[in-house]
This record gives sequence, C-alpha cells and structure tokens, in this order.
Amino acid sequence: MNRDKALLLVKKQITEKRYQHTLGVEKTALELAAQYGANPTKASLAAIFHDYAKFRPIEEMEKVILTEKMDQRLLQFHHELWHAPVGAYLVEKEAGIDDQEILDAIRYHTTGRRNMSLLEKVIYLADYIEPGRYFPGVDEVREIAKRNLNQALLKAAKNTIIFLVSRDQMVFPDSLEMYHDLLKNKGAQ
Amino acid sequence: MNRDKALLLVKKQITEKRYQHTLGVEKTALELAAQYGANPTKASLAAIFHDYAKFRPIEEMEKVILTEKMDQRLLQFHHELWHAPVGAYLVEKEAGIDDQEILDAIRYHTTGRRNMSLLEKVIYLADYIEPGRYFPGVDEVREIAKRNLNQALLKAAKNTIIFLVSRDQMVFPDSLEMYHDLLKNKGAQ
Repeated sequence: MNRDKALLLVKKQITEKRYQHTLGVEKTALELAAQYGANPTKASLAAIFHDYAKFRPIEEMEKVILTEKMDQRLLQFHHELWHAPVGAYLVEKEAGIDDQEILDAIRYHTTGRRNMSLLEKVIYLADYIEPGRYFPGVDEVREIAKRNLNQALLKAAKNTIIFLVSRDQMVFPDSLEMYHDLLKNKGAQ
Repeated sequence: MNRDKALLLVKKQITEKRYQHTLGVEKTALELAAQYGANPTKASLAAIFHDYAKFRPIEEMEKVILTEKMDQRLLQFHHELWHAPVGAYLVEKEAGIDDQEILDAIRYHTTGRRNMSLLEKVIYLADYIEPGRYFPGVDEVREIAKRNLNQALLKAAKNTIIFLVSRDQMVFPDSLEMYHDLLKNKGAQ
C-alpha cells in the first residue's frame, strides 16, 4: 500500500485532530527509523495506521477482543487500551495490511510488551514524543531519544507507570514487562 | 506457641535493630487488629515472625525457593523479596507454626497479592507504618489507617510502586495485582 492511499483510508476513520497527531507520529517515526536503522516504509505505514481504531465504538472493540480470541485480560482494563490490538486486527482485515511487523507495531503501541522489535519501539516512542505532545516529562524523553532509543523508551515506560498509578489507574501487565525488560537490558545499551 | 517463646526464637535470628522494628510491627498490628477485627493472637505471632528469615544467606533463600517449588519468578526479582516466602517456610519448619493464615501473612508481607486476607492486610500495613518507619508519605498512610484499612493499603501499594519505578527497580507482579485489587474494591469500602 502506498502512503497516499493509507492516509486516505485513515482520514476517514479519525478526527482531524487525531489525523494531525498521526502525521506527527509518522514524522517522528521516520526520524527515529533513520537514526536507529528501522525500515522507513514500514515505519511510515505503522505510524499512519496506529490509531486506525481509535474512534470505533467500545462495544465493537469489545466484540473483536472476544471473538478474535485476543488477550482477554484487556477487558479488565481501560478501553483506552483496546484500540491498539483491535486496530491491528482491523487494519489487516479492512486495509489489507498483512505485514506482521507493521501489525505488531500497531498492536503494541499503547501497552508495549517485553522483547519489542525495533519497529515496535519506534512507533511506541514516536507516539509518545511526536511534536504535538505536551505533558510533563515529554521534553526529557525527546532529548534522550536523540542519543539512545532504549533509554528513551525506559523513561517513557517509567513516566507512564508513575502517571497511571498516581492517578489511581490500572497498569496493563505488558507495560510492566516492557519496563522490566528495558531495565534488564539497560547495561547492555 | 506463646508470645515469649516466639520472641526468644526470633531474637536469635535477627539484629537488635530489626528486633525493635519487629516489636513496632507487633504493636501496630495489634492496634490494627483491634480496630478492624482481626484475631489478636494471630496478628501478634505473624508480626513477631514476619522477618524471621531476613538475615538468612541469599544462597540459602535461593535454594529454598528452588527446592520448595515456590513462585520461581521470585528469582528474577531482588532478593529483598525472598525473606517473606522463605520466612513462611522456615517458621513452619523450624518454629512449628502451622497456622496457614499466619504463614500467609508472613509469606505476602513484602509483595502483597490479590485477595489478601484481613490478617495479611494487617501485617503488610503494620510493617509499612510501625512507629520506627520514617520515609516520605508514611504519615499520610498512618492517618488513612485510622479511618480505612483498604484505603491505607492502596496508598501504601501506590507509594511502593512509584518508589520502585522512580528508582529503576522492578515491581513484583503480585504487588501490581494487590494495587489493582484494592483499586477495584475502592468503591465498595
């Protein structure tokens, strides 16, 4: 699929604000891909499609998680997490993307997981630091991202856990595993 | 087992400083037990024995975790966590305590877990707020403990996760599950 067709498909699915965010994620993902050696075509497509399911009705997402035998623990967590795995499913089914690397980058862009691929890391981080993001700590992660991809992800994972816990929100176990995984490999970077 | 014999057994296992901490945990556990309706005899014994294995050699604790088929994930986490489950095992084996409620309160006093019993909650919280504890946030938890056991535990669990993550330390999954469990039941308190 070429970029223009991908953008057209996504534009129909999301709000204008979310579309601008998506363009920001793509821009940042391409920068990170160039810097850390990820495939730019895959980075572009994964970024464009990462929020494809963001505005699907909660009931539709719930049904997909149930019928497609996804990780059923998701249903115990906030539906904000659902658009990522459901998006991977719908992008394959409706847009015909069958590259598993791209689909996994979409699938894990919100929770993260242990043993993330380079493309998964690029999309997760691009979603966190794209130019439209404004929240405490984002500039620090942007700075670290210029030097070290894994360190930047570690900081983002830490910020996310602390943010959620300080606000009485649940933390999906995969996010804790992403954090532990990056922590273990910290010395090896 | 009576209290005096328990204290004698424990005194031989731990430092004087840790023994004073143990007396503080017992005092607080008895106050919490009286307030929230836990069995005072069990609260006293669980408190007295909670740090029984604190000064066992790391290698001995590792061997117990391996040979007694405990949760093997413990070995991937800091050995600071090991004295609790290993303590429960040794207190049964060496001191002859066979009350499973007491042993579980010892076993989960550091990590917590989902569906904690009243006695487990009392010991976990007493260990956190006993009078000898000084760290940021402890006074707030002491105050909440006067009004609501589960709210105090939730605050302690949150503080612990945030403390660990902000210091690049791993969080045992049971601690996250304790936090989620208390969060889910927050409305019901």
